Amino acid sequence: MPPSSALNMSKTTIAIIAAVSAATGAAVTAASMSLSGSGKKSKPATPLLSAQLPSPPLPPAPVPMSTNTIPLPPVPVGRPLPTSAIVPPVDPAGLFQYGFPGPVNDLATRNSLISSYDRRTKNPFWVAEHITPASLKLQEGDRKGSVFLEDPDLPERFRGKLKDYFRSGYDRGHQVPAADAKWSQEAMNDTFYLSNMCPQVGEGFNRDYWAHFEDFCRRLTTKYPSVRIVTGPLYLPKRDADGKWRVNYEVIGNPPNIAVPTHFYKVIFAEDGMVGGQVAIGAFVLPNAVIPNEKPLAEFEVPVEAVERASGLEFATKLPVQRRKRLCADMQCSLVIKEYAQRQKAFAQGGKK
Amino acid sequence: MPPSSALNMSKTTIAIIAAVSAATGAAVTAASMSLSGSGKKSKPATPLLSAQLPSPPLPPAPVPMSTNTIPLPPVPVGRPLPTSAIVPPVDPAGLFQYGFPGPVNDLATRNSLISSYDRRTKNPFWVAEHITPASLKLQEGDRKGSVFLEDPDLPERFRGKLKDYFRSGYDRGHQVPAADAKWSQEAMNDTFYLSNMCPQVGEGFNRDYWAHFEDFCRRLTTKYPSVRIVTGPLYLPKRDADGKWRVNYEVIGNPPNIAVPTHFYKVIFAEDGMVGGQVAIGAFVLPNAVIPNEKPLAEFEVPVEAVERASGLEFATKLPVQRRKRLCADMQCSLVIKEYAQRQKAFAQGGKK
Repeated sequence: MPPSSALNMSKTTIAIIAAVSAATGAAVTAASMSLSGSGKKSKPATPLLSAQLPSPPLPPAPVPMSTNTIPLPPVPVGRPLPTSAIVPPVDPAGLFQYGFPGPVNDLATRNSLISSYDRRTKNPFWVAEHITPASLKLQEGDRKGSVFLEDPDLPERFRGKLKDYFRSGYDRGHQVPAADAKWSQEAMNDTFYLSNMCPQVGEGFNRDYWAHFEDFCRRLTTKYPSVRIVTGPLYLPKRDADGKWRVNYEVIGNPPNIAVPTHFYKVIFAEDGMVGGQVAIGAFVLPNAVIPNEKPLAEFEVPVEAVERASGLEFATKLPVQRRKRLCADMQCSLVIKEYAQRQKAFAQGGKK
Repeated sequence: MPPSSALNMSKTTIAIIAAVSAATGAAVTAASMSLSGSGKKSKPATPLLSAQLPSPPLPPAPVPMSTNTIPLPPVPVGRPLPTSAIVPPVDPAGLFQYGFPGPVNDLATRNSLISSYDRRTKNPFWVAEHITPASLKLQEGDRKGSVFLEDPDLPERFRGKLKDYFRSGYDRGHQVPAADAKWSQEAMNDTFYLSNMCPQVGEGFNRDYWAHFEDFCRRLTTKYPSVRIVTGPLYLPKRDADGKWRVNYEVIGNPPNIAVPTHFYKVIFAEDGMVGGQVAIGAFVLPNAVIPNEKPLAEFEVPVEAVERASGLEFATKLPVQRRKRLCADMQCSLVIKEYAQRQKAFAQGGKK
């Protein structure tokens, strides 16, 4: 599949931003900063259902006549009486005698990352890492000492396989970058499980723009003493010529096994190092495609809420609004490309990330 | 989007069956009956990793010298010593101070069904129901008394909406059929939450072949005293002309919100009513497309393992092989169409399922 042009991104970005705006009626930036904490599971009143199932008030609970009698727990006031006297003739939960269907979101806790795995796409849902000036200074790990590994903690049938990537045309793209885990060889090895990988376009993306973006994240530690990054794939719809939105992605492997994400997100939490301090949040969505180095990083900034809606995940639900700042208002969100001339040369000589 | 031809199904079926066969080397039916229980989380040896991290044998655990000393738990033999003395300089789990990203698979337990919800596609992962001759005999509920409802138990931002379906061209397709929950009006109402719906092609599928298939499931109760059915959507890849496999599905709503599944599965457990008795299992995958009534149902039978691999779910992991039978070997898996002439007429007069 020829990687779709980066120009498609604007459309998608507009679409997910539109989704947020439409849902909130608020400005995009405001949505990012003030709304992502409102994602707690809510149970609003259900007027339609209530109308169908009237709930007559219950009589007061009987008072036990003797202290020898074990008192029954009080009947909650206003609890609806069953409106039907029929004893349920079925037991849907009986299915679980044969096992719970899942899905199991395989959580892995390793030295340098925590990840949650999607058994359907054979990609992670998200991987979370933490970097500091001190952790990046340590240089104990070397990527030459690491090898790509299928994740043995996943059931065999749901694993991404090394052979799925073979001759697929895609890189095994680290979600937590190896270069963020140089503080020990084990920490680096932990980033080489395929459960920390997604198929990524190599030239022009994984080895270029995405690598520069990863470097941008590391450079944040020159301003912030502690930086947390959540990274993962997205499968976003694109508007076709007929006006309909469609998700379209390749699946690599034979038989087909690992989905090729259309986009990748990073949600960045840049901390000031104080307990209860300020947190600068930035969310970015990049297409899994060739992106020219000239393209400003700021064009890929999206509201956190947009990543949440597209991924089905929630970020920062417990972070109070007054502790939040917008990362790209707190500092300039732009890439530094020139340092990479040598690195790009190394890649061109056949090295794969 | 014009629904893709049912002829595509064969290709997909072949693909997922091929996947199973390739992975197991066993015959398809054998795979269905004997392998779907092998999905327990396994932790095989990791030779590559072990080679990198040699595990020197530990000295024997010291024997406590006095019975007054609380004995330490024995040190497991062969447990690897840490190969690095570095204290981890980072704490990836610190992210969770801001909330756990999820995904949350919203489990709902209602009178007539249990469901698990996919916040990314805004469709269920699965819905589970239970029918018996007695439950189907009761006729207390009437679909005229039910209305389609957005599920108030889901966070607003992750809900499928009534407006998403409006003018989408797709039916709000029950996963647990309303007709399976006539035993009370509440039980029937429970099937009308959008969390029990997926966008389904109406004419030729939801109102026709799929409806006949649902009737096939109900008729199983004439032979089996207790029938459990798990139903849900799939998003399957199709082989394109260039030889690559791609998943391609529409997303309805404005902004786009609910995915239109490419296929639907049912995994059926037909029980003999004895504790620890025989269970006849059948798994079927149908394309979300017009299917001619003449098409034999047996063509859509697949190994349970194929549904598991495609959905990321697991069925019957706790059901011993010796208790299993293959449903379509135990009875004839075929539809009865003729009874539906009148019903189809009703649909043609503007009624939507």
